[in-house]
Amino acid sequence: MSEELNRSRPEARALTDSTLHHVVIVGAGFGGLAVAHGLAGAPVRITMIDQRNHHLFQPLLYQVGTATLATSEIAWPIRHLLRKRKEVTTLLAVVSGVDPVQQAVLLEDGASVPFDTLVLATGARHAYFGHDEWETYAPGLKTLEDATSIRRRILLSLERAERETDPQRRAARLTFVIVGGGPTGVELAGSIAELTHQNLAEDFRRIDTRKVRVLLIEAGPRILPSFTADLSAYAHAALERLGVEIQLGVPVSDCNDKGVVYGSHSIAADVILWAAGVRASPAAAWLGQAGDGAGRVKVEPDLTVPGAANIFVIGDTASVNAWKGKPIPGIAPAAKQQGVHVARTIKKRLQGDAAPRPFRYKNSGNLATIGKRSAVIDFGWIKMRGRLAWWVWGLAHIYFLIGLRNRLAVALSWLWIYTTGNRSACLITQVDHRPKSG
Amino acid sequence: MSEELNRSRPEARALTDSTLHHVVIVGAGFGGLAVAHGLAGAPVRITMIDQRNHHLFQPLLYQVGTATLATSEIAWPIRHLLRKRKEVTTLLAVVSGVDPVQQAVLLEDGASVPFDTLVLATGARHAYFGHDEWETYAPGLKTLEDATSIRRRILLSLERAERETDPQRRAARLTFVIVGGGPTGVELAGSIAELTHQNLAEDFRRIDTRKVRVLLIEAGPRILPSFTADLSAYAHAALERLGVEIQLGVPVSDCNDKGVVYGSHSIAADVILWAAGVRASPAAAWLGQAGDGAGRVKVEPDLTVPGAANIFVIGDTASVNAWKGKPIPGIAPAAKQQGVHVARTIKKRLQGDAAPRPFRYKNSGNLATIGKRSAVIDFGWIKMRGRLAWWVWGLAHIYFLIGLRNRLAVALSWLWIYTTGNRSACLITQVDHRPKSG
Repeated sequence: MSEELNRSRPEARALTDSTLHHVVIVGAGFGGLAVAHGLAGAPVRITMIDQRNHHLFQPLLYQVGTATLATSEIAWPIRHLLRKRKEVTTLLAVVSGVDPVQQAVLLEDGASVPFDTLVLATGARHAYFGHDEWETYAPGLKTLEDATSIRRRILLSLERAERETDPQRRAARLTFVIVGGGPTGVELAGSIAELTHQNLAEDFRRIDTRKVRVLLIEAGPRILPSFTADLSAYAHAALERLGVEIQLGVPVSDCNDKGVVYGSHSIAADVILWAAGVRASPAAAWLGQAGDGAGRVKVEPDLTVPGAANIFVIGDTASVNAWKGKPIPGIAPAAKQQGVHVARTIKKRLQGDAAPRPFRYKNSGNLATIGKRSAVIDFGWIKMRGRLAWWVWGLAHIYFLIGLRNRLAVALSWLWIYTTGNRSACLITQVDHRPKSG
Repeated sequence: MSEELNRSRPEARALTDSTLHHVVIVGAGFGGLAVAHGLAGAPVRITMIDQRNHHLFQPLLYQVGTATLATSEIAWPIRHLLRKRKEVTTLLAVVSGVDPVQQAVLLEDGASVPFDTLVLATGARHAYFGHDEWETYAPGLKTLEDATSIRRRILLSLERAERETDPQRRAARLTFVIVGGGPTGVELAGSIAELTHQNLAEDFRRIDTRKVRVLLIEAGPRILPSFTADLSAYAHAALERLGVEIQLGVPVSDCNDKGVVYGSHSIAADVILWAAGVRASPAAAWLGQAGDGAGRVKVEPDLTVPGAANIFVIGDTASVNAWKGKPIPGIAPAAKQQGVHVARTIKKRLQGDAAPRPFRYKNSGNLATIGKRSAVIDFGWIKMRGRLAWWVWGLAHIYFLIGLRNRLAVALSWLWIYTTGNRSACLITQVDHRPKSG
């Protein structure tokens, strides 16, 4: 298809000379973009396919969900990021499969894109351990739409509470449950506690948002299980100081329109947020694989698919045991490192060096914030916690944002909320803006 | 209802002492907020009702629609704006009518809010001259949702053109029609021409966005009919320099999924934007009035409803002939002036002075921008055009934005796009993000 289209515009065709090795990258997240960046200057033409038009800085997505940042501060149009790379064609399209015989990516609309080398970097969605029906009541946080939808749920629940006359129903509207005590759950809980207990304290007349109940439920014995026990304990205490209730050791057994059930407890809550598990995108199915327990594609140490040396899978979609016998964590630096590795491998191969190059993960640290004053960081060689850790976290995230403009904008937003406590993005938008009756 | 709710929280009840005169304001636009601000310190309690949770700076809405500004830069949560005013209660609610006997505002959910004085400031929507079926194909620009929806249509049409193989269908996807040559139509046309011909010129590979056709259709003999003939002619030439085609003197006779029909012409276009007419909100129906031709409530010179001295109607919802025999223009300063006037009238009445106080409109000027380099301004005593006028326009709009943070953010966004040409907000969001097949 791409050849056909190119034929109609000769100057474009020249730019993507079809005799060049064609690399198709599916997914413009941290991993996919790292492949594209790593191939700059290489004798290839590249097609970047994504079902959204923007790259998303997922580590700060929870701040859109809790009304700290605006959507455009953490998202960039993919084709704009790659506009100077004339050998890269960006397609907004939904992939439906991979044809191993024709060596082509199949698109949902019936078109297909042939490849010489394919990189699948399609990420993960949240998962409900076999209870997909919970998603309606307990949305997760992976896309911009997820974030604005969560923001709308939180703010609408407060609006409805303001107009609620029945004390029990009002209490349910003022109860926010976060399921899952990993970094996302901890960051959501801390941020919601600050939003309601501090930032919005003056905004309402009939409810007292300082009394909003924020409950974090973690099935395991401690929050932040990927951190050391002492950092985990520190985060636990810091969250409690912010007014978050933490419930450990009991898995959630039901989410419904009334609230959440765990163990023998039943909590009435209008807003339940899901941060308990992820499942890889359907790349395994495209390749005819079963995938591992989380749906990830089992790849060779060099990140290729077994039996298909010209197909790579990276990031949250790949399952590779390559770090002290443990799985590589599903974080941005890991996906980036894999993308860089794949780009190097492709360049080596084009130079005639086809020897397998096993990927080695370098621990780039583990970070989580608790509200806007505290964080825990584990770089391996050094551990930090508290206010200084928050500043390190903040500077690191601003550094990794793309473009000076967004760095300035995010720095301004944080500075503003840090000094004034006023959140700029408390907007209820999209069609569902009307309050439910009652 | 409000009394009932207050009973459950004694300290809130004290704040809205029910013996105080109760002013209910419906609509937190420029007019409604001006009433609330004007009543600061008066012996009243106030209920502010709006169906959205945010006040919107409508004069810059077209910049959200054309990917220059982010939504949170021009919108503020109403209850946050009024948080220091403890006598003001903000309700997110949909009004369904006014009960003149019970002297109460009726809400869609069955509740009612009694008033001593009522101010209706509910604005206007776009209108299709009896062809409401055109709205599907030619959306207008009044709300944040309208703006993000228009942005999505524009960007998706370019994405689809990039993947289109049929030359005719590709041409339709690269044709943008704006119906209506008033300030909104002129601003949309200029901004879309700059977006496609300049800002996105490097982003695509198979289409040349510099060749995008931007067509402005105005039924009257000239664009910007509310300006003087020479400013109108200047704007016409400036728009053409930006690459906008202008078609005058022929009304649009159909909008459908193929495009737009005017006179004997039929233009195939995927994106049609409507800026040709407005119709007032249903306030007239609530009051049992017929309303004028545009659905506005005919009010007395003091802005009260005939026969109901304690009900005021202001802004785009009101029809009052009070300015050199001409109707007052539907712009923000007019709504603000009316809001200030109503607040003064209410305060005078509470002091025992019930004499009618006719409203007099002071011409605060007429402004429109053509792209990001040029504008036309008519203050009455002085007329300006060109680059200097653009700077006056820009500074005036930044001045009238609410809050230092948004002034900084908008100034940063403009400075950025002015110097780099990179639009920060080119995001396709919301559920409809997938491209149509083909």
